[in-house]
Amino acid sequence: MTDTKVNSDLQRERDKCTFNVQELTHVIDGGPHMTEERKKREETILKEGIHEDEVPTEYLSHKEKYEVAVKKACLLFKLMRRLQEEENNGMENFRAVVGGSLGSAILQDGSPLTLHYVMFIPALMGQGTVEQQAYWIGRAFNLDIIGTYAQTELGHGTFVRGLETTATYDPKTKEFVLHSPTLTAYKWWPGGLAHTANYCIVMAQLYTNGQCHGIHAFIVQLRDEETHMPRPGIKVGEIGAKLGMNGTNNGFLGFEHVRIPREHMLMKNSKVLEDGTYVNSPSSKLAYGTMMFVRVVLVNDMCNYIAKAVTIATRYSAVRRQSQPKPNEPEPQILDYVTQQHKLFIGIASVHAFKLSADWLWNMYNNVTEELEAGDLDRLPELHALSCCLKAVSTADAAECVERCRLACGGHGYMQASNLPLTYGHVTAACTYEGENTVLLLQTARYLVKAWQQVVGGNSLTPTVSYIAKVNSGRRSPPWDNTIEGIIEGFQRVSAAKIGICVANIEKRQKNGMSYEDAWNMTSVQLTQASEAHCRAILLSSYHEQTLSQVTNVSPELREVLLQLVDLYVVYWALQRVGDLLRFTSISERDIEQLQNWYEQLLTKIRPNAVGLVDSFDIRDEILHSALGAYDGRVYERLMAEALKSPLNAEPVNQSFHKYLKPFMQGKL
Amino acid sequence: MTDTKVNSDLQRERDKCTFNVQELTHVIDGGPHMTEERKKREETILKEGIHEDEVPTEYLSHKEKYEVAVKKACLLFKLMRRLQEEENNGMENFRAVVGGSLGSAILQDGSPLTLHYVMFIPALMGQGTVEQQAYWIGRAFNLDIIGTYAQTELGHGTFVRGLETTATYDPKTKEFVLHSPTLTAYKWWPGGLAHTANYCIVMAQLYTNGQCHGIHAFIVQLRDEETHMPRPGIKVGEIGAKLGMNGTNNGFLGFEHVRIPREHMLMKNSKVLEDGTYVNSPSSKLAYGTMMFVRVVLVNDMCNYIAKAVTIATRYSAVRRQSQPKPNEPEPQILDYVTQQHKLFIGIASVHAFKLSADWLWNMYNNVTEELEAGDLDRLPELHALSCCLKAVSTADAAECVERCRLACGGHGYMQASNLPLTYGHVTAACTYEGENTVLLLQTARYLVKAWQQVVGGNSLTPTVSYIAKVNSGRRSPPWDNTIEGIIEGFQRVSAAKIGICVANIEKRQKNGMSYEDAWNMTSVQLTQASEAHCRAILLSSYHEQTLSQVTNVSPELREVLLQLVDLYVVYWALQRVGDLLRFTSISERDIEQLQNWYEQLLTKIRPNAVGLVDSFDIRDEILHSALGAYDGRVYERLMAEALKSPLNAEPVNQSFHKYLKPFMQGKL
Repeated sequence: MTDTKVNSDLQRERDKCTFNVQELTHVIDGGPHMTEERKKREETILKEGIHEDEVPTEYLSHKEKYEVAVKKACLLFKLMRRLQEEENNGMENFRAVVGGSLGSAILQDGSPLTLHYVMFIPALMGQGTVEQQAYWIGRAFNLDIIGTYAQTELGHGTFVRGLETTATYDPKTKEFVLHSPTLTAYKWWPGGLAHTANYCIVMAQLYTNGQCHGIHAFIVQLRDEETHMPRPGIKVGEIGAKLGMNGTNNGFLGFEHVRIPREHMLMKNSKVLEDGTYVNSPSSKLAYGTMMFVRVVLVNDMCNYIAKAVTIATRYSAVRRQSQPKPNEPEPQILDYVTQQHKLFIGIASVHAFKLSADWLWNMYNNVTEELEAGDLDRLPELHALSCCLKAVSTADAAECVERCRLACGGHGYMQASNLPLTYGHVTAACTYEGENTVLLLQTARYLVKAWQQVVGGNSLTPTVSYIAKVNSGRRSPPWDNTIEGIIEGFQRVSAAKIGICVANIEKRQKNGMSYEDAWNMTSVQLTQASEAHCRAILLSSYHEQTLSQVTNVSPELREVLLQLVDLYVVYWALQRVGDLLRFTSISERDIEQLQNWYEQLLTKIRPNAVGLVDSFDIRDEILHSALGAYDGRVYERLMAEALKSPLNAEPVNQSFHKYLKPFMQGKL
Repeated sequence: MTDTKVNSDLQRERDKCTFNVQELTHVIDGGPHMTEERKKREETILKEGIHEDEVPTEYLSHKEKYEVAVKKACLLFKLMRRLQEEENNGMENFRAVVGGSLGSAILQDGSPLTLHYVMFIPALMGQGTVEQQAYWIGRAFNLDIIGTYAQTELGHGTFVRGLETTATYDPKTKEFVLHSPTLTAYKWWPGGLAHTANYCIVMAQLYTNGQCHGIHAFIVQLRDEETHMPRPGIKVGEIGAKLGMNGTNNGFLGFEHVRIPREHMLMKNSKVLEDGTYVNSPSSKLAYGTMMFVRVVLVNDMCNYIAKAVTIATRYSAVRRQSQPKPNEPEPQILDYVTQQHKLFIGIASVHAFKLSADWLWNMYNNVTEELEAGDLDRLPELHALSCCLKAVSTADAAECVERCRLACGGHGYMQASNLPLTYGHVTAACTYEGENTVLLLQTARYLVKAWQQVVGGNSLTPTVSYIAKVNSGRRSPPWDNTIEGIIEGFQRVSAAKIGICVANIEKRQKNGMSYEDAWNMTSVQLTQASEAHCRAILLSSYHEQTLSQVTNVSPELREVLLQLVDLYVVYWALQRVGDLLRFTSISERDIEQLQNWYEQLLTKIRPNAVGLVDSFDIRDEILHSALGAYDGRVYERLMAEALKSPLNAEPVNQSFHKYLKPFMQGKL
């Protein structure tokens, strides 16, 4: 592929784009200097060539995939270390290489060292005493040791209190004894645990003086620092192949009465004294911080994956031609089919919607964290509720968007060379980890039910749920307003009404003799729906508001396009939730038909800018890693080039012909 | 795992089941003798042990996966041949081993020989002359040759007329010259094409005497029968790794002026005479037959995959315990969470709904085929329209069901050992092959628009669309009837209204100056939705009617359960489509709240029988192939046993430690 000509259909799309693509890239990055920094970082890291594969990883065995991942991860973090010394700009580099963007260009199927940086070191920082931090963080940063973080067990996931691993203090030797009393107590899932890490932070039930004090964190050495052999009593290995992320080296870990020094309990919050006396934590709410941080980061990461998928599918749709609706005319680009636009453009808008909502959540997170440090815990439950439902909705929407993009590429989307299957593997995993989505929606629902009761009790509400009081104060159904603002208010009305119905159902069930817990459970399908409705209302209004402030500083051409995307997003969701709007607002059939018409017009308006819009995400070919999505649009040449990399194609006749096929055909097998 | 005790939670579920599981199995199979035959077939085939793997395939390299697939496929079809000689009962055996049930136990990731039986031989039968059949089918059945079927090209999929491969007749040598004029003309996708088949039926544009006569079928030898080397001018290889089905050996194929004898054109319908004269086909509609057959079979196959997924997820949910909603009580089985029931029970009902609808479609297919053979083509368009939308909706629903089941198993569903990822790989592929779903929905929509115009013109309608006239004849909104029958009529009303709106929109757009084709395209999102609404109406009513006749012959206990499933299915879909019902029927908010309450009560009623219901699908452990779903419910033992099979676990320290990790840690990399 020495010829670097761009596919002419794609070039024509670029020529007719009505706005300045680079201007939008700058807006998305947060300013021209941020774009420049990002591009420089990408260039610095990618020019090392660590991402290049002799044989694409999809052709390797499971074991080889791990070995390549270790090699690449070591080379990558070696480079990170060098850059940190040279540039003293480590944090941004680290963030980029562990996230879904630059990192996924190098370690496409996950990295066995990610948890060392993302969980092990932060947990030491968050839960260790000053002395512990001084000792352990130094060793971890110097890579004297490689760590991971083990919480989930074979039989226990989201419900942390149910963990079975025990850490029993022995005052005679001043040691903790770690033990896995059952098979289901085995740690299961931690990344890097299987064959990579030699140390681990283990969450276990603390027993001292015959009493259980709940879950605490302990540092355990897993392997010999020289030989890497598992230490006595340590049962460690990998959990096996998965749908995706097969480079992460997820492991299991069991303990047979493993002794560790008392000082290996992380004691920032709670302590066990030498004699076994337990000294309680000052505030258990502080532990929420890390979990929320990860969820906030996840929302942002989802944008990267949606942006990748929709870039691939949109460029492919500009190149691919199919069918002949009009006789004697050439086959149209499939991007001209309105059904295709319907599949793709909502993905483009979703990137912007989640990106701006993630920024907004990030600001709120920083404010609340500041308040926390000043001892003010008031807004913690609100932030917790928000981060739960936004994590659930953004991961679920991202999975749907990516899969829809893949299907929109027809058969070729099913090929690994499209990079859409691996992308889906990453995104769908996020629906489960860091809090399973249904569980998270129900946590938000608890907050919403409380908020409802505060309204009924005449109390004031925190900002993100204050609309509940507002829409409840007026008449039941004011006239429908078929505008963006009107639709957003409609969504708030829907959310409030759904919460109200849930509360009424729970109360009715309690009156009929059910316990609160059973009434809650019986109503839980509706509760998840109320929680999602709340999140939709938040997303629509935050996307709308953030865009209005964003467009005050852009060119008129770009302003028009950004507002079209907001319109598309809001109208799309109105049409998706038309049943809710009909139930709880005074929208009419005529309004709905107008919305449908508006939606179809928006697709037509966005159509000429579709390629420009995905170009503005400015994702390098190495990061896209897709034969269908490359910037030059040479889809078919690239598909063939990728196919020829298959080791099966290295020989004209595979050995199985002689071994099985020929004897089989000759009746001699 | 020598201990064969069943998990006690699962045993308790079985003890409390209110109906006879075996009775339901007999109903599903079509009678006790059919169950017996199926079980005997499964036993005969599985006792050979072909399905057993030394190393589970998910740990192998792409090349090894193919080699194992060839080995297993050869052994399997050798067995089939033996059984055919012994039992003379070949067809049922063949059908079972190429389908999603028994076949998937042996070749979990697809088979390189399937297309030989499913496409190559049937195409010879359907398109060859008697002489051609006599020669080629014999050779194919004897396995003197192994064939496949090549239609799709790198640049051309669903739109068959767009194929580029040419077959030009040369009267001088009485040969056809096959040629791929461009890269996009390369055949791409056929299973077994890459390294397995030595013959191929190729669809190409026929040119003779300077004129193009469209797509025709040709038999081409690809490889030497002795050496298996590609023949001169044949460019053949594999297309690369895919999301799933990596055992199918999908290939590409290009021609450089390859000459084949005139007799290698399949001439049942059209002919080229020695002098190059083209003699036309008597009826081109006959070619529809095969395509429809495959789609009808697909609907049935989808049931197998949903049944597998929901068996796995339901048994796991009975074993898995999580959280503690009530203090001092043990963690409940997750099957007790209503949100979990909401995810799973619709899957159980969907198996029955699609199974009965597939039977109904199958009968219709046979009737129409008989009429066809008698020269009556009247009902062909109706059957075509039905098979299109049912294929689209059943594959899309199956993909959603399987994925929902996987997510309902939390992290463990993400493991290959659950078998849910591979199952999804099969099902989601079916959304694209044999007609991409959106394209198929639009084909049905064409039929519906015509039906609407017939109603307007006062003409009578074919049976499956006759409801359009019926619901249009009465008043716009009769009182809502909150029963199963009422809901089904509501769905018919929705479908009819949606078709009507589409027709009106197209006409309005034409009046505003658009061409019919552009107006159709602008309305196509709504058209796919109308087509889906039609399919839902058909599914609900056929499932309901078929069940009513089915339950006349079963015990009262089973009758109750089967009717609960119909209720669940119908009410579930009513709640899913509440927006449509509000728009086009007189359903009220009160009715909706009653439906929601009814739905929640149905979940509670079905809960005690959930395990019994999936047990009645009677899927052997070898076919389920899932650590989470085995009959004994020993989930955690099996997960650990599967993990220990990973080749990475064969050594305590992986070589990458010495090669990369240690030098990296020591700063010496």
